[in-house]
Amino acid sequence: MEKATYFEKVPVNTPGGGYDVCVGRNTLEVTLPPLLASLMPNSVAVISHPGLLELYGERLRFLIEASFAGNVRTLFYSFPDGEEHKDLETLKEAYGALLRFGITRYDVLLAFGGGVVGDLAGFVAATYMRGLRYLQVPTTLMAMVDSSIGGKVGIDLPEGKNLVGAFYQPEAVLVDVDYLATLPAREMRSGLAEVAKYGFLYDEGILVEMERWQDGLPDEDYDFVPLVMACARQKASVVSEDERDLSGRRARLNYGHTFGHALEAATGYRALRHGEAVALGMIMAARMAELFWSFATGFTERHLRILLPLLKEVRLPRGLTADDVMEYMERDKKKRGELSLILLMRWQAPVLVNSPPLDLVRRAVDEVLKEVCSR
Amino acid sequence: MEKATYFEKVPVNTPGGGYDVCVGRNTLEVTLPPLLASLMPNSVAVISHPGLLELYGERLRFLIEASFAGNVRTLFYSFPDGEEHKDLETLKEAYGALLRFGITRYDVLLAFGGGVVGDLAGFVAATYMRGLRYLQVPTTLMAMVDSSIGGKVGIDLPEGKNLVGAFYQPEAVLVDVDYLATLPAREMRSGLAEVAKYGFLYDEGILVEMERWQDGLPDEDYDFVPLVMACARQKASVVSEDERDLSGRRARLNYGHTFGHALEAATGYRALRHGEAVALGMIMAARMAELFWSFATGFTERHLRILLPLLKEVRLPRGLTADDVMEYMERDKKKRGELSLILLMRWQAPVLVNSPPLDLVRRAVDEVLKEVCSR
Repeated sequence: MEKATYFEKVPVNTPGGGYDVCVGRNTLEVTLPPLLASLMPNSVAVISHPGLLELYGERLRFLIEASFAGNVRTLFYSFPDGEEHKDLETLKEAYGALLRFGITRYDVLLAFGGGVVGDLAGFVAATYMRGLRYLQVPTTLMAMVDSSIGGKVGIDLPEGKNLVGAFYQPEAVLVDVDYLATLPAREMRSGLAEVAKYGFLYDEGILVEMERWQDGLPDEDYDFVPLVMACARQKASVVSEDERDLSGRRARLNYGHTFGHALEAATGYRALRHGEAVALGMIMAARMAELFWSFATGFTERHLRILLPLLKEVRLPRGLTADDVMEYMERDKKKRGELSLILLMRWQAPVLVNSPPLDLVRRAVDEVLKEVCSR
Repeated sequence: MEKATYFEKVPVNTPGGGYDVCVGRNTLEVTLPPLLASLMPNSVAVISHPGLLELYGERLRFLIEASFAGNVRTLFYSFPDGEEHKDLETLKEAYGALLRFGITRYDVLLAFGGGVVGDLAGFVAATYMRGLRYLQVPTTLMAMVDSSIGGKVGIDLPEGKNLVGAFYQPEAVLVDVDYLATLPAREMRSGLAEVAKYGFLYDEGILVEMERWQDGLPDEDYDFVPLVMACARQKASVVSEDERDLSGRRARLNYGHTFGHALEAATGYRALRHGEAVALGMIMAARMAELFWSFATGFTERHLRILLPLLKEVRLPRGLTADDVMEYMERDKKKRGELSLILLMRWQAPVLVNSPPLDLVRRAVDEVLKEVCSR
């Protein structure tokens, strides 16, 4: 059956610019030509990965160039997959490619890929000739529901992730859920952890939906549009209120992330995908909430029910202990001045807790590690 | 005689932020402590050149740390003088220095130096951890009247100048004209070319003032505050109306620059300082205006009277021809799509002329090169 073409819009309104997140099927086919016609570039620079361009490059070229009867040129710049390539070296290479092609400040950049592509390409857009207009076209679930919305762009330094970057909003975020058809199952599960995050923080409907699934994944012919829309709506609302992560509202989106970052670091960024680390981190945050508040019960159990299936392919390194994780939590604390955690008080009621008692934090980490490793 | 402490403020209002340019003597002594007290950093990162830190480093440290009774730490990062160091390598090194010192997004950066320091340090501020608050403290005349105001920050690529950057406004620009006392005469003359630019474009008073001077320089005990204020006022007004260089108003500040950039490139960025290239460029623009408009007379003569003394120390390479310069103008044209020049119609009445007749442009370049070389 041919998939229907349709999309819905979620508006994002920030001081840095207002734009729409368009979520649907065949979204680019209907939105890209009029959007480019309004932006009037001489060239469009697509930044992506080689594998994605193999699958979708020619279609993209057709959509871009046909919009202008062939009067617009398309540059494809791609770099290898993997967080380790989101660095100054790739950035330099990307600048060079744009320059050689003759991209000017009146042209448009298109970020086509997952979070790594969106972050790096967005930072190129923010800084090349003091700023190009750009479009986010996320191809992974993680990027669709989270990283492509809100204008956080940047690269890593050898010393750590996302240490260099900017807040730079795109002209639009174009989400075509059909790209998910080619996403590996592990990548899909990793993205679903971020989806669950919106459920725990804001939207009970998402949790109810996910609890229906077998084995952490929906049926093969599942329509992702409503789920992605529900997440995009939450992200758009948060970003519209707190673009620059100042009021604490945007910081709530880091639910599970303080634990998650420590887990990623403690496992050398190899054993866990970002979403998997966040899933584990949210289970730890749930357990921590139960330990911290006398009235809290059932958090860990439900987190495990929803998140454990998403960790199916994870093999934690033997011998990983709570102490290892706590060591990286301490480093984080040193960097930020104090440790703070997002904890649920009730479902969909997150609060920021500063300087939580470290013995409880350690116990939460320890219990969850043992629980997860025993399954 | 002890110099009096006083300063005046010029407000800059942009969508990217409102702030003051404070121009005076001992400006930092009176403005820095309260400003830092309101910004509340844990650390201040000073980015500068080694020579400047030798002269002013300890005084800066005192002003910064005394403001907080020693509870704020000061990082000094310096890199060698010269446009060739405004590059990705220095940027990377600066990021590393800030990281090792533990600078966080709540800290403050202070750019202390000329245009090169302001551009690079401002770009570090724009991008380190997605943006630090920063102060511009210009120490050259060029930076005081032009580059420190308006938030244009960035670095060079091997392929060209200012190809990577951002619009990122400081919290304040603090100008102490006493720094000019240690400025070499050639650097001073180069800055005065930019001062003259404001005269030609906006302020007859500046031209009248400069015409009084002997040999292109004012007396030794000259009070620079009114002159720097007059320029800062113009720059602040332009930037407030056209922060991102979109309406064409900010583009007028490039008077003489299209010629100037071609001259800099044609002489391999060695024979001319930026201000000197702009001075020559403005003379060419003046001659071009006379050739282009039948009613224009006297432009070249007055430009020569004011600007020629500023070119005293310039030795143009033997054999530099109008054709060499035109070749680089053509490259510029290719890059931007078309050649455009800012030309005066009357004194203080600049207009943007698109696609000017190239034979006239060539003639203007040729005549001015011959005129200047013959003196």
